[in-house]
Amino acid sequence: MITVHHLNNSRSQRILWMLEELGLDYEVKLYQREPSMQAPASLRAVHPLGKSPVITDGGKTLAESGAILEYLVETYGNGRFTPPPGTPERLRYTYFLHYAEGSLMPLLFMKLVFTRLPERVPWAMRPVARMISAGADKALLGPQISNHFGFLEGELAGRDWFAGALFSAADVFTLPTIYDPFSNACLEALATGVPKQRRQISSLFGIRKCSLCSSDSARWSSLQNYET
Amino acid sequence: MITVHHLNNSRSQRILWMLEELGLDYEVKLYQREPSMQAPASLRAVHPLGKSPVITDGGKTLAESGAILEYLVETYGNGRFTPPPGTPERLRYTYFLHYAEGSLMPLLFMKLVFTRLPERVPWAMRPVARMISAGADKALLGPQISNHFGFLEGELAGRDWFAGALFSAADVFTLPTIYDPFSNACLEALATGVPKQRRQISSLFGIRKCSLCSSDSARWSSLQNYET
Repeated sequence: MITVHHLNNSRSQRILWMLEELGLDYEVKLYQREPSMQAPASLRAVHPLGKSPVITDGGKTLAESGAILEYLVETYGNGRFTPPPGTPERLRYTYFLHYAEGSLMPLLFMKLVFTRLPERVPWAMRPVARMISAGADKALLGPQISNHFGFLEGELAGRDWFAGALFSAADVFTLPTIYDPFSNACLEALATGVPKQRRQISSLFGIRKCSLCSSDSARWSSLQNYET
Repeated sequence: MITVHHLNNSRSQRILWMLEELGLDYEVKLYQREPSMQAPASLRAVHPLGKSPVITDGGKTLAESGAILEYLVETYGNGRFTPPPGTPERLRYTYFLHYAEGSLMPLLFMKLVFTRLPERVPWAMRPVARMISAGADKALLGPQISNHFGFLEGELAGRDWFAGALFSAADVFTLPTIYDPFSNACLEALATGVPKQRRQISSLFGIRKCSLCSSDSARWSSLQNYET
């Protein structure tokens, strides 16, 4: 049995989504962040970095979102959710199984840190902190994030999914990063993105979400509650 | 012929290393950052994000370090530099082909941004910027980076390479992130890391580097010059 070790406000939503798509049985073990926002010691006992997502499958323990998705699809996919090797679609798939965490997420995470900076410093430092936060957004983060959203829009122009005509693990990996109703940082980045792309992404993710809802609405509802 | 589109002060050093290990012919096309540190428009013509590394191979264009390494090893490795599917080593390999960019590099990049923050703001804001920089390091980045270096030390305890007994693309991906003589941010992170781990990493990377030097010292020397 696969166990998803789920830390609240972390990135394991997409692992749950992949498991649903694969139709696998799994159990979820919930972990709550400590007041310091650090993971509890019990999660460190599963993986030394104390990060989520982490899964255990028999005697195997695996962390890192992209690695978990690769493992699940290769082990249980029977050819589904991954384009055939040697095709242009497989090349796009390989790229998008790295892109979201390798290129986009660091920018979104840094935007979150700078956005919250003014509220994290003593009162007297806040005016300067606000200027620093605005400056980082204007000079570094804003233009780069806009560049990425323009890129994503281009990648989906004329394609239904990131790898091509067929839905794949690359979509499970990428879509929650840019359309995550549970992440203020991502939502904010989305809100400042390109309107056409926003509609397109929302529509794509919405369609998939609805198909999950209709197949198992109680389950999807319970997944949402993990993050609220 | 494979072409590496190399932007100065970027992450394509590891792609060059992988190509050397694979013994492939390739050409390097150099791109210089503009005074704003942005990539030149000519690199955007290769890939819309204007990032490096990017490779072209025949009619194919591929970006994102981990994806490029996966592509090169799968296409040209003939089973080298990747453990056999279904083995514990393959699981470790898959993990480490995502970990460096997915988990560690965002922290190192953020440390770089906060370290440089005081010099990037107007003179009058510098005292507050210095306090913010020190606070970010103490509360957020320092403990997490120490946690990661402790984790890496543990992963290499009793193993020669990250996937296990054999050198793999996972080492090419991971080692330059934590021991990069051309990156001040990584070096600083390393300098504050765990001494035993630092020696271990230095030794590992040093051995591999020396094997490249002895096989083609002129080539390795010229690779170094790309980043100076």
